[in-house]
Amino acid sequence: MPTVQIELLTGRTVEQKREMAAKVTEAIVTSLNCPKEAVSIIIRDMPLENYANAGVLRIDKK
Amino acid sequence: MPTVQIELLTGRTVEQKREMAAKVTEAIVTSLNCPKEAVSIIIRDMPLENYANAGVLRIDKK
Amino acid sequence: MPTVQIELLTGRTVEQKREMAAKVTEAIVTSLNCPKEAVSIIIRDMPLENYANAGVLRIDKK
Amino acid sequence: MPTVQIELLTGRTVEQKREMAAKVTEAIVTSLNCPKEAVSIIIRDMPLENYANAGVLRIDKK
Amino acid sequence: MPTVQIELLTGRTVEQKREMAAKVTEAIVTSLNCPKEAVSIIIRDMPLENYANAGVLRIDKK
Amino acid sequence: MPTVQIELLTGRTVEQKREMAAKVTEAIVTSLNCPKEAVSIIIRDMPLENYANAGVLRIDKK
Repeated sequence: MPTVQIELLTGRTVEQKREMAAKVTEAIVTSLNCPKEAVSIIIRDMPLENYANAGVLRIDKK
Repeated sequence: MPTVQIELLTGRTVEQKREMAAKVTEAIVTSLNCPKEAVSIIIRDMPLENYANAGVLRIDKK
Repeated sequence: MPTVQIELLTGRTVEQKREMAAKVTEAIVTSLNCPKEAVSIIIRDMPLENYANAGVLRIDKK
Repeated sequence: MPTVQIELLTGRTVEQKREMAAKVTEAIVTSLNCPKEAVSIIIRDMPLENYANAGVLRIDKK
Repeated sequence: MPTVQIELLTGRTVEQKREMAAKVTEAIVTSLNCPKEAVSIIIRDMPLENYANAGVLRIDKK
Repeated sequence: MPTVQIELLTGRTVEQKREMAAKVTEAIVTSLNCPKEAVSIIIRDMPLENYANAGVLRIDKK
């Protein structure tokens, strides 16, 4: 605890995920004053056909 | 907000997801009286080995 | 299956949730051609201090 | 209901998921005294680059 | 890892959650051959107005 | 997108959530090079009886 789940559109590199995991963990540790070992992050990649806003799939967005 | 997450068994076409995203968004907009831009939908596809009911994986269901 | 999770800002009435559950289920049944008994919906209410966009809690939004 | 979501690091076999689904369902049925048909389990596999603890991706863990 | 999320209808006692947490953890440890310290469980209680099946809120189910 | 879900043990103040939302958003914007308006954060508070590690509820942890 805390447990973080992050949904991303597909295409992020391992390097971007590495930086994001480090920085998000630091952000939580600083804000909540908890040990970094307590922070777990689950990342989920989504294809563009699996996300919609305003009823429109991202794959269809102009 | 609202944020919707939908788990589907794998095999749905983009066309089905497109229709579902549009119709689910409209259903929420009508029910809650919110702008459609506020509605986000995350779809997750699951292989048949990743869903179980009554302790039985869908892949094993007769 | 399908399983739907919907996060809402707190304050929706039971009547709104009732209409939303019925309409979202119908939207999925129509789009995916599945039996309505297969559709489950989990609703989660969030206090305004528990949602943020662009780094700003909803409770602070002007 | 109950609905269970389980995140696993990738690499589990179907046989392991089959055993897990059966045993987790039994554990819930026994503890909560509910019918097994009420228990649904969603499994999500994560690549090693999609999980972090203490700010470090599992793919980088020594 | 593994991380488990369990949605329950409200009304379960602490004793039931205690038993469920112990038994579900044991079920996962046995099935996946992982250390019990690796298993985290998040429980979420839902009021009856926040769960629907077949388009009907549980609070309305006869 | 990205959509972030964070589970916290209950007891965090609004001030802590405010700081966390701002810092986590900044961490994601910097790492992924996306606009801050694209980042949404859902926070969920858990009572101590609703989280377990190693099969033990947090409420029972010595």
